[in-house]
Amino acid sequence: MTETRTETDSFGPIAVPADRYWGAQTQRSLQNFRIGEEKMPRPIVHALGLIKLAAARANRALGALDPSLADAIEAAAREVADGKLDAEFPLAVWQTGSGTQSNMNANEVIANRAIEQLGGTLGSKTPIHPNDHVNRGQSSNDTFPTAMHVAAAMEIHGRLLPQLEALHRTLDAKAVAFAGIIKIGRTHLQDATPLTLGQEFSGYAAQVENGIRRARQALEELMPLAQGGTAVGTGLNTKTGFAERIAAELAGLTGLPFRTAANKFEALATHDAIVAAHGALNTLAVGLFKIANDIRLLGSGPRAGIGELVLPENEPGSSIMPGKVNPTQCEAMTMVCTRVFGNHAAVTFAGSQGHLELNVYKPVIADAVLQSVRLLADAADSFREHCLEGLAADEARIGDLMSRSLMLVTALAPVVGYDNAARIAKQAHHNGTTLREEALGSGLVDAATFDATVDAARMIQPDA
Amino acid sequence: MTETRTETDSFGPIAVPADRYWGAQTQRSLQNFRIGEEKMPRPIVHALGLIKLAAARANRALGALDPSLADAIEAAAREVADGKLDAEFPLAVWQTGSGTQSNMNANEVIANRAIEQLGGTLGSKTPIHPNDHVNRGQSSNDTFPTAMHVAAAMEIHGRLLPQLEALHRTLDAKAVAFAGIIKIGRTHLQDATPLTLGQEFSGYAAQVENGIRRARQALEELMPLAQGGTAVGTGLNTKTGFAERIAAELAGLTGLPFRTAANKFEALATHDAIVAAHGALNTLAVGLFKIANDIRLLGSGPRAGIGELVLPENEPGSSIMPGKVNPTQCEAMTMVCTRVFGNHAAVTFAGSQGHLELNVYKPVIADAVLQSVRLLADAADSFREHCLEGLAADEARIGDLMSRSLMLVTALAPVVGYDNAARIAKQAHHNGTTLREEALGSGLVDAATFDATVDAARMIQPDA
Amino acid sequence: MTETRTETDSFGPIAVPADRYWGAQTQRSLQNFRIGEEKMPRPIVHALGLIKLAAARANRALGALDPSLADAIEAAAREVADGKLDAEFPLAVWQTGSGTQSNMNANEVIANRAIEQLGGTLGSKTPIHPNDHVNRGQSSNDTFPTAMHVAAAMEIHGRLLPQLEALHRTLDAKAVAFAGIIKIGRTHLQDATPLTLGQEFSGYAAQVENGIRRARQALEELMPLAQGGTAVGTGLNTKTGFAERIAAELAGLTGLPFRTAANKFEALATHDAIVAAHGALNTLAVGLFKIANDIRLLGSGPRAGIGELVLPENEPGSSIMPGKVNPTQCEAMTMVCTRVFGNHAAVTFAGSQGHLELNVYKPVIADAVLQSVRLLADAADSFREHCLEGLAADEARIGDLMSRSLMLVTALAPVVGYDNAARIAKQAHHNGTTLREEALGSGLVDAATFDATVDAARMIQPDA
Amino acid sequence: MTETRTETDSFGPIAVPADRYWGAQTQRSLQNFRIGEEKMPRPIVHALGLIKLAAARANRALGALDPSLADAIEAAAREVADGKLDAEFPLAVWQTGSGTQSNMNANEVIANRAIEQLGGTLGSKTPIHPNDHVNRGQSSNDTFPTAMHVAAAMEIHGRLLPQLEALHRTLDAKAVAFAGIIKIGRTHLQDATPLTLGQEFSGYAAQVENGIRRARQALEELMPLAQGGTAVGTGLNTKTGFAERIAAELAGLTGLPFRTAANKFEALATHDAIVAAHGALNTLAVGLFKIANDIRLLGSGPRAGIGELVLPENEPGSSIMPGKVNPTQCEAMTMVCTRVFGNHAAVTFAGSQGHLELNVYKPVIADAVLQSVRLLADAADSFREHCLEGLAADEARIGDLMSRSLMLVTALAPVVGYDNAARIAKQAHHNGTTLREEALGSGLVDAATFDATVDAARMIQPDA
Repeated sequence: MTETRTETDSFGPIAVPADRYWGAQTQRSLQNFRIGEEKMPRPIVHALGLIKLAAARANRALGALDPSLADAIEAAAREVADGKLDAEFPLAVWQTGSGTQSNMNANEVIANRAIEQLGGTLGSKTPIHPNDHVNRGQSSNDTFPTAMHVAAAMEIHGRLLPQLEALHRTLDAKAVAFAGIIKIGRTHLQDATPLTLGQEFSGYAAQVENGIRRARQALEELMPLAQGGTAVGTGLNTKTGFAERIAAELAGLTGLPFRTAANKFEALATHDAIVAAHGALNTLAVGLFKIANDIRLLGSGPRAGIGELVLPENEPGSSIMPGKVNPTQCEAMTMVCTRVFGNHAAVTFAGSQGHLELNVYKPVIADAVLQSVRLLADAADSFREHCLEGLAADEARIGDLMSRSLMLVTALAPVVGYDNAARIAKQAHHNGTTLREEALGSGLVDAATFDATVDAARMIQPDA
Repeated sequence: MTETRTETDSFGPIAVPADRYWGAQTQRSLQNFRIGEEKMPRPIVHALGLIKLAAARANRALGALDPSLADAIEAAAREVADGKLDAEFPLAVWQTGSGTQSNMNANEVIANRAIEQLGGTLGSKTPIHPNDHVNRGQSSNDTFPTAMHVAAAMEIHGRLLPQLEALHRTLDAKAVAFAGIIKIGRTHLQDATPLTLGQEFSGYAAQVENGIRRARQALEELMPLAQGGTAVGTGLNTKTGFAERIAAELAGLTGLPFRTAANKFEALATHDAIVAAHGALNTLAVGLFKIANDIRLLGSGPRAGIGELVLPENEPGSSIMPGKVNPTQCEAMTMVCTRVFGNHAAVTFAGSQGHLELNVYKPVIADAVLQSVRLLADAADSFREHCLEGLAADEARIGDLMSRSLMLVTALAPVVGYDNAARIAKQAHHNGTTLREEALGSGLVDAATFDATVDAARMIQPDA
Repeated sequence: MTETRTETDSFGPIAVPADRYWGAQTQRSLQNFRIGEEKMPRPIVHALGLIKLAAARANRALGALDPSLADAIEAAAREVADGKLDAEFPLAVWQTGSGTQSNMNANEVIANRAIEQLGGTLGSKTPIHPNDHVNRGQSSNDTFPTAMHVAAAMEIHGRLLPQLEALHRTLDAKAVAFAGIIKIGRTHLQDATPLTLGQEFSGYAAQVENGIRRARQALEELMPLAQGGTAVGTGLNTKTGFAERIAAELAGLTGLPFRTAANKFEALATHDAIVAAHGALNTLAVGLFKIANDIRLLGSGPRAGIGELVLPENEPGSSIMPGKVNPTQCEAMTMVCTRVFGNHAAVTFAGSQGHLELNVYKPVIADAVLQSVRLLADAADSFREHCLEGLAADEARIGDLMSRSLMLVTALAPVVGYDNAARIAKQAHHNGTTLREEALGSGLVDAATFDATVDAARMIQPDA
Repeated sequence: MTETRTETDSFGPIAVPADRYWGAQTQRSLQNFRIGEEKMPRPIVHALGLIKLAAARANRALGALDPSLADAIEAAAREVADGKLDAEFPLAVWQTGSGTQSNMNANEVIANRAIEQLGGTLGSKTPIHPNDHVNRGQSSNDTFPTAMHVAAAMEIHGRLLPQLEALHRTLDAKAVAFAGIIKIGRTHLQDATPLTLGQEFSGYAAQVENGIRRARQALEELMPLAQGGTAVGTGLNTKTGFAERIAAELAGLTGLPFRTAANKFEALATHDAIVAAHGALNTLAVGLFKIANDIRLLGSGPRAGIGELVLPENEPGSSIMPGKVNPTQCEAMTMVCTRVFGNHAAVTFAGSQGHLELNVYKPVIADAVLQSVRLLADAADSFREHCLEGLAADEARIGDLMSRSLMLVTALAPVVGYDNAARIAKQAHHNGTTLREEALGSGLVDAATFDATVDAARMIQPDA
């Protein structure tokens, strides 16, 4: 049996584990929402810590909070922000849709921790009350969406963007390293005109470069903060200036240019900004999926596939087929992208379901967005380190496939016309011959012209 | 200027094209909903015709409709059901969410057509009133969902299932025809142990066979009909027995075992049955996507891909690359599947959004479901006729790839152990040698044992 | 520094924590896939335990495994199945798409645990080899999909169905308890004809009843098992009869009627069956969403909403608005449904992406399906216990709203005609009067007829 | 029997209707792709006309096309761009995934139309050849994605943005008009603290304002054009400078700042830009859904709902319930949004499925994107005109609900503390009394303080 103490809220007393800082409302939530295994994401908890810290500062500056109480709240909130009290945040994602219970979890933990520091009695709400002091000038309805923006922005900025930039550098370096390798192109998965392997990788690099640009736009979507709107967006029970001041504090604390939202009604009742931001993650996943899938295709084989790329061998590939090596990093990446697509469906749905002054799908949105950011960042890192950096071209194989291609005939079309060129290619295909044989046999072109024209090295850019 | 006549409804008079049978409410909807180009799907219009016909019969039998009026309604409704009055149904999908305006469109057209046949004046509502007679014992709220079930069931039964069965027969025939062709298997797109091309196609045939089974389950979901629930599910303004009788009439008219829904409140306020039915279409699309994508992979080349299958050449493949042929039927099929996935997201969303006694997303659901059925049926037909029937195996290519495979080593594992087998395969891979060379060189197996064990023909089934 | 021992695989030696049972491949996966926080779901781990147990029995019976080794494997596998070795399964969901590394994790843990029991040396692979003995007659490619089916089926059967049945009983009991309460119906969220609150709840009960039926169909989809197909579906390296025997063993171990899949190529390369099964969960979520959303609407208020239902008060609702109580269980339920919709998008996508002999999105599919089952089961339980069981009708409020309704005019339409009835209702609406006043004033109906006709109690079923 | 003439392509001769301009490849596509009813969207056809016009100009300027031929191509292409030849574009969306057949449709129609104008023989390809002249320097692989960008950008710019701006102005005007109406707020659909109806509408206006901003970002995503990449992105068979010149021509023709894509490999093989652009439409739909759904909630009734808003009465609402009026424009809007969500799932899926040098899901993407733009634009227009402009507040009802609210107690919390305020609110709720009665009865506050504090007009902004 765990030892307990009594905490109270407007519903009355309730027993809480004696060694925990949380209070009555956290405890009620634990008992009322035994759903699944997903806990409120840690970045949300840490963001709540930052918000409570910033709120204490803003309230003190506006004369709404006694400096000594503010100090104590700040110190305790800092511990929450720094992850030192993570174990005090046991609540499920699947709780009230406003995230009220996690906001109260933060209020209760900070109040009790501050009370403890001030020598008071846990659960006494004296001298620090979770609602009247820690939550002062705040409602869950503006605090939780603020936490969502702060957490997602910090994760995108601190976790995702660096990994995307590293990925971009690696792809770019591969594009340079592979610049001299001419290979057959493939459209519709059918043989097409040539390009360099470097050009192919330049497309991947461009995708990630655009992904970085879009992730920055996502970040910008998250800069306006709901804080200061309180219960329904009006700012009731805040001092004038609180909204601007807390945004400035949060900007200072995080180094990100947060600002107060221009319209608080929009900021509480909708999550259009987060839907838009997740749209950038969705597009990024679309792009990364294509890159990983292509590399798996180009690395297929070793003997009965395309085999143009040689992927690093990281682990045994099969429990039954000895010696098999698989494109496992591509698989992890494409699975992550699949999860992001699913998250986007969930975020889109949830985003549309606000009613009047509040959207009550906040926790599921927060969980999905933060999962997407985390997975994309980690997968980008893993894919880069374990797949891309050691990736090599099988130049012999590439050259062999190149030399047999029929689509070099495209270079001949401006000389002999599309219809004649098509005839030459078809005959070579059906006769199993080379283009050169059929072209010369057709009498439409002489050997010198053919050799000058059908030259893969000249086919990888516009005519001079 | 079109000549007009005056029609009236509870909102007053309105000018309607003189040569049209529709009335005031149809005309209002035309003016109030100028949205997009999508018209109410024809199968819904035809189903409304069947319902009005069946309702007239049921009402007559229950003494709720004068036989002479019933006769006239039946005759006009039959024309709607037979598609003879399609031009009289101009309304958009994007209208009221109950489909009321399309139900009224049917009521108005049938009333005026029946009035005309009886020698009356269009728009007079005498002797046939669109609401009091054609719509007797009905509400849009039970009629439109009934039309959705009847239309979707008829399309699945009459259009989709025959095409799936034809597709299944063709795949099955290919599995038989290809039964003797041993080829390399591929897992993770990497070379794996062998199977026959016929086995590979037997998997596709099994997918379609399961798809047929699931489509039949979808059909079964659609058998319960909402008709008889009227406005909110209580059956107000129907005679006792009307619900059962109209379901029986519809069963007789269509040859499908429709029955009255056990709970009409569920049948009006939700479309869980249709979401479930579309789930079967979604699964089918998942399966067809894989089949078409595989065939495109196996047909990739002709010289720089896998090239095990030769797809029929149906048209020139490129406007710039002469002689190129592409897997265009695979592309049409996979695009159709993509649209079905999108429709499933829309149907799922819409299905969840009922409020109290009514779901008001009926037209968008109807449109999506009927589009999915039509596209899957047509694509199955096109894919079968233009891609599968002429599909051939390139046995030389298959044999060549087979002979070079390293994964035949799997058969050696029970003899020399997994770890030794892995070592042999790796050495062959890195040295560019054959398994046989490395295996004999290892001293772990003699030539006779190797040849008896590493035999692809023995690797395509369990050990005796 | 953790103490380590050396384990080996075909890639060579690697250091593993000395106090762990896992081996080289698990360790490599830990190092190569540092992605996210999601671990392979425990039901998959337990199912792998059951499969290894069943395989040992089947192999022994077929003479493919020495009985003493089989005994040791069975005992260790039983511990895995019972969850006693959960801590030995540290791998991420985001690994190879075949789940090979988790299959090897099971093979390694069971081998080492069995070796330990037999007095051997961990990592020695003697006398039990993870591949040659524990994995005998198996490939990840058939084992992991089998684990997916076994795990999902056990969760649906043991966790979801009981909760749905309890939910259905509660809704059914409410339908009975509320049978005598006549209330206004609402279609398009607008006032409509009456029904009883019991009828309204009978619709919810019917939805859940259908959901149970569909969940049973999902279960049936999961009964065919891939096991016995080994690497590509051919059954290479199994004894004839192994597939049937292991399915029978698994049926015996679980009490569920598992059987060997009719076509193993389909069973490895596709997850159509799981997509179909998740389609049932998706439909269920659609239904539960509607129920929870309706109850939130009917409980809206307390003074400025609909207010027909009184929801149990479980916790304080607001950190800023004292005394507020919110429909938090409805919110948790609708958030869970949102997550299931997202999972369905992910499962659909992943299901379509198989290539040739294998679908390599198995872990993401497994994770999503098991999350959906768990969340729906838990949310059904929580919603039932904390919201439905204490749910009460505010009969005074219901009666008040009922008495003011204009839509009772529908009962008058058969008497005075639709157009006259519409006129009466419109006048009452615009004049703020009652239907009775306007009807009598119209001269179309006398008081006795009006009172006999416009009687809500007679409007909740068909005419006699 | 239609009269025919013979056209030829590299597959040989084929009969084409004599009165049509299209040629052999269009005809083959008609016969090979009998799938569904969806035709290639007209904006794509018109964009192809613009591209062919621009290409003729660019080729002439670069010396790649004889001026007289260029003139004739330009004139014919202009007719395509202007929609004069729409009937000549009969192809289905469901064709080859590169859109090659629609590109050839344009090439053939323009060639024949130009031949006709020059006095030549249809089908002779003299003096204008569909490939060698009309398609000069182009491939479907760069032309079709260019058409997708041009078409989508023109539709967003010319159709969607003006409607969004009109919608924004109307919402903004409503926010001003309703600025003085204080009403009860609702969070979790439960009574909350007050705000003005104008504030509520300011949130909607802000959503649309953000939607406009995001639509402009979508436009920006579409400015880079693939044209000039030809078959695989290298620009083979174009003159140096062609890519830049044709983008400049298209900019001039459309007034939109199109530019050549920085990386053509990315531009052919991916549609990340379109996925991103559709993400903006998805977010817009999320926002519009919420607005329409809120207005339907606020207009619910007329007597048994919230009833704060009075929606324009546009048509009879029910075929059975006389006098019923429904929020039909809200329903059309929310159905349109549902379709956009489905389209986003389809576009996301399709966008991820590119293989190597080409994404072959172009037609399904084009169709979905253009449908989303069209539907959102039309629905915005219809919703604005038929719902918002005539929308009125029922001030009596709003005042009545306001006066009964318990959540005004929030203003008391800073005076008496959260816990006391909660107690007062709960007692009022359970006793059916007013806050004032309970507050004064509690002895915690005097009448003067209560009246000065609990004043809705002071609760709609921060404290001074």
